[in-house]
Amino acid sequence: MAGQTLRVIPLGGLGEIGRNMMVYEYGDTMIAVDVGLMFPDAEHPGVDLIIPDFQYVLDNVDRLKAVFLTHGHEDHIGAIPFLLREAQVPVFCLQLTRGLVQVKLKEHRLLDGAEVSVVEPGDVIDVGPFSVEFFSVSHSIPDSAGLIIDTPLGPVVHTGDFKIDHTPLLGQHTDLARLANLGDEGALLLCADSTYAEIEGYTPSEQRVAEALDRYIGEAEGRVIVTTFASLISRVQIVLDSAAKHGRRVFVTGRSMVNNVGMARDLGYLRIPGNVLMGVNEMKQHPDSKTVIICTGSQGEPTSALTRMANGTHQQIGIQEGDTVILSSNPVPGNEKSVYKNIDLLMEAGARVIYNRLADVHVRGHASREELKVIHRLVRPRYFLPIHGEYRHLVLHRDLAIQLGMDEDDAFVLTDGEVLEIDDRGAEISGTVPADYVYVDGIGIGEIDDFVLRDRQRLADDGLVVVVAAIDRHNGKLTRPPEVMSHGFAGPDEEASLMEGVQQLIVDVLGGEDTAIDWSEIHETLKDDVAEYLHKQTRRHPLVIPVMLEV
Amino acid sequence: MAGQTLRVIPLGGLGEIGRNMMVYEYGDTMIAVDVGLMFPDAEHPGVDLIIPDFQYVLDNVDRLKAVFLTHGHEDHIGAIPFLLREAQVPVFCLQLTRGLVQVKLKEHRLLDGAEVSVVEPGDVIDVGPFSVEFFSVSHSIPDSAGLIIDTPLGPVVHTGDFKIDHTPLLGQHTDLARLANLGDEGALLLCADSTYAEIEGYTPSEQRVAEALDRYIGEAEGRVIVTTFASLISRVQIVLDSAAKHGRRVFVTGRSMVNNVGMARDLGYLRIPGNVLMGVNEMKQHPDSKTVIICTGSQGEPTSALTRMANGTHQQIGIQEGDTVILSSNPVPGNEKSVYKNIDLLMEAGARVIYNRLADVHVRGHASREELKVIHRLVRPRYFLPIHGEYRHLVLHRDLAIQLGMDEDDAFVLTDGEVLEIDDRGAEISGTVPADYVYVDGIGIGEIDDFVLRDRQRLADDGLVVVVAAIDRHNGKLTRPPEVMSHGFAGPDEEASLMEGVQQLIVDVLGGEDTAIDWSEIHETLKDDVAEYLHKQTRRHPLVIPVMLEV
Repeated sequence: MAGQTLRVIPLGGLGEIGRNMMVYEYGDTMIAVDVGLMFPDAEHPGVDLIIPDFQYVLDNVDRLKAVFLTHGHEDHIGAIPFLLREAQVPVFCLQLTRGLVQVKLKEHRLLDGAEVSVVEPGDVIDVGPFSVEFFSVSHSIPDSAGLIIDTPLGPVVHTGDFKIDHTPLLGQHTDLARLANLGDEGALLLCADSTYAEIEGYTPSEQRVAEALDRYIGEAEGRVIVTTFASLISRVQIVLDSAAKHGRRVFVTGRSMVNNVGMARDLGYLRIPGNVLMGVNEMKQHPDSKTVIICTGSQGEPTSALTRMANGTHQQIGIQEGDTVILSSNPVPGNEKSVYKNIDLLMEAGARVIYNRLADVHVRGHASREELKVIHRLVRPRYFLPIHGEYRHLVLHRDLAIQLGMDEDDAFVLTDGEVLEIDDRGAEISGTVPADYVYVDGIGIGEIDDFVLRDRQRLADDGLVVVVAAIDRHNGKLTRPPEVMSHGFAGPDEEASLMEGVQQLIVDVLGGEDTAIDWSEIHETLKDDVAEYLHKQTRRHPLVIPVMLEV
Repeated sequence: MAGQTLRVIPLGGLGEIGRNMMVYEYGDTMIAVDVGLMFPDAEHPGVDLIIPDFQYVLDNVDRLKAVFLTHGHEDHIGAIPFLLREAQVPVFCLQLTRGLVQVKLKEHRLLDGAEVSVVEPGDVIDVGPFSVEFFSVSHSIPDSAGLIIDTPLGPVVHTGDFKIDHTPLLGQHTDLARLANLGDEGALLLCADSTYAEIEGYTPSEQRVAEALDRYIGEAEGRVIVTTFASLISRVQIVLDSAAKHGRRVFVTGRSMVNNVGMARDLGYLRIPGNVLMGVNEMKQHPDSKTVIICTGSQGEPTSALTRMANGTHQQIGIQEGDTVILSSNPVPGNEKSVYKNIDLLMEAGARVIYNRLADVHVRGHASREELKVIHRLVRPRYFLPIHGEYRHLVLHRDLAIQLGMDEDDAFVLTDGEVLEIDDRGAEISGTVPADYVYVDGIGIGEIDDFVLRDRQRLADDGLVVVVAAIDRHNGKLTRPPEVMSHGFAGPDEEASLMEGVQQLIVDVLGGEDTAIDWSEIHETLKDDVAEYLHKQTRRHPLVIPVMLEV
């Protein structure tokens, strides 16, 4: 029976189901699609990265035959080193994606052992019962692909992140003809991007951004400073073309922007018009009216080039009256505050600032509702599984499929770790596999758990108080005045008086003891009494750490 | 000279300049407009409230003659108890605002001493050289007002929060005729709401929400659950009217919603059609198809009614298949995550959920750009000061005024604490007064400072490690094995091995000592060595607290 069943499992995405990783299984063969990571937010203090839980995959590592990567964004490839250090498995992806993966593997010193093969749209990789074909899609990074995963039960279309752009800048269309053709043959399952299932209509073309950017670059009198995502190569192309058209030169600054522009140029993804690119050290001699700067910092990252310019701490570039700064990006949820803070500072320094709320200087990389309908109509699948979205996006995408005529029993909303089983009799959610998140903090992977994060949150809320009592082992009395210290709990004046109160309290608590002491009891009593006293005085709940020494 | 100068000072707003409080001074007289608070975000761990810095006002308390409140939202009245406990000063506001202020004063046991007078639009209060007239404005709470502050140099228009709504639900228009009339006479200064200076066009009317809500309530088959801001009385009115029209009864739940509906009803702001309102305990016997529930929780507040329904922990109301939940609100910046989490949970429980991204079930309470232009054209002020917005909003609003023909030297962008001085020769930014934020944490007001918050943030990021070493006073050697404990630093397995390593390190550090000990030096060494060891092992930076006892 298991031999004739296709199993589909979303894994990882921190609420965005299947965003980071998906597993497909048939018989003894397992393949993974994408191995990405998420960035932590305020609910994960101190955590560096969040990666999918590989437990299920590693428990079945002898069955894992290949990993397919749809495109080079962090949330789809960022965790690949963490998987490859645990499992030897061949990886397949398009050229730019491979370039970005190699950078990661090098950082993790995994380049030697890893086998990452470049494919092109149309290529088919056979893995046991699966034949996996890459097809081109439009998205906000070159070399984005969807997958047609042929199985003995019929083909599965896995869109990856995509939009439909009929006038893309770098010739990267979503291959609607291939999908139509597949639909004619009969598709078993569609797994499609749901990120913008809330948004009515069509996502605008990159062409619209080209027009807006060209207008602002054309009308600027002083320098133009443009920031965008470093991986959004088409945006860089727009700026290069517009700068050349208006007789300006382009200077690139910010580590990841310099790296990505270099790689995209070397791999042939960027066309550099004439000698438009110049080194940042030549900028001083170049007139402002002939200058465009492309830099990092679209998300207000603290050490990025734009943030340093905004703060006045950039070594080469200080913002001045007459500068036009363009944020060709949207703030990713969670980054709004840092982004808008930068805008405020840039304006205070005298720049004109153009950003997403004021002009069409950015378009999204995901399909809106009308585009999703096109895909459904072309593929006409037997079953539908919305992926890549929070729960409400999946529900809205499922409802959209039902509006288009799908039977509600054939459309499934899964959460991470749930297993969709399909055989020739039907499809059902058959159970779950482990699919937690794994926190990376420093060099610890999975050492930090939610319990530790709760401790951190508590420390953040009210700080801590350490009380130190040295007690005579013979009579249980304090051998000297107790010491009390606090961190993150109270301001200096308040602290002094509170700490005095705590010292007195400890003297009172321990003063009455004699010889026979129950140490664990007195430890708890001291902790509770100090906590209660401080709460009464301040209505705060610091962590109280009693240190008791028998001397 | 000072006698002939008007001084205008924005105070408090956590980046939203003058949102919480403004001060106007002429000669020996000072008046304040609004005394509100801000809610902290992730940058202020553990802080309960943020209030304006009253230092400048209290330093000049003998000159402070009156406080005027424009409307009853927290960011305009929330800090009034904190001011009134320091200063005896008469307060003037409209009726509903007074009702909301009294609730606060009662909680703070300040009701007896406070003098809060009710005025109506058109009323004029004379305070020394000032004559302050209230005028009606549309906003998202009844009894919102702007102020015309007449001064010996001419009248100042202070809009407060406002929009222009020609078809408001509760008859609350912005009094354009009065402003036109004032403009004819010649206005000195316009201080106007800049919150939506980024948004093109007009803010839609509350009427549009009425139509959308009525449609969803009309077409629902099961229960309808509506959440909104408790102070958005017009929204409650819409729901009551629509429920009555469709033969449904309305049940109110959630403390602040119950309180506000009760107060609005008692004061005559709500028209209750027939016997449409019923008690929550009667709900069980009432058919779902005839039920509407109005509840708190529009911002995903953890203990609100809707959040408890979403989590399955509400005592009376469990979400079921067939329920329609309407979020008639936008998430306030910072609350997105909690709001969307609730939506996901409500959908998982089987409800249909209608929210801002899907339908016109909310409109904003602030004027967009075309409305701002109307105000500028009517008032035609000599000078302009954009208020109530982050820096970029103020800049955009100033630029709008300049586009409308104002001289750029006559439009001023201030930050909190900056002083705009106007006399009969001109206007200029003349200096600053103290205008920090004051954090309220528990019962401490201003005890917690940014230094404490940095400590908290650090504790949140990497936790702490306490090392305890008992040292023989005679020879400086450890008298027993050192103790090490950690919080929020490492997971259980990791901790055990790390703590062993730290113990050994302490033995090594202190092992070599003999008799003559420099205590402060050894304390620092221990701290640094442990921190360095842990960083090397984990790439984390916990706070290391050494406790050393001479025994």
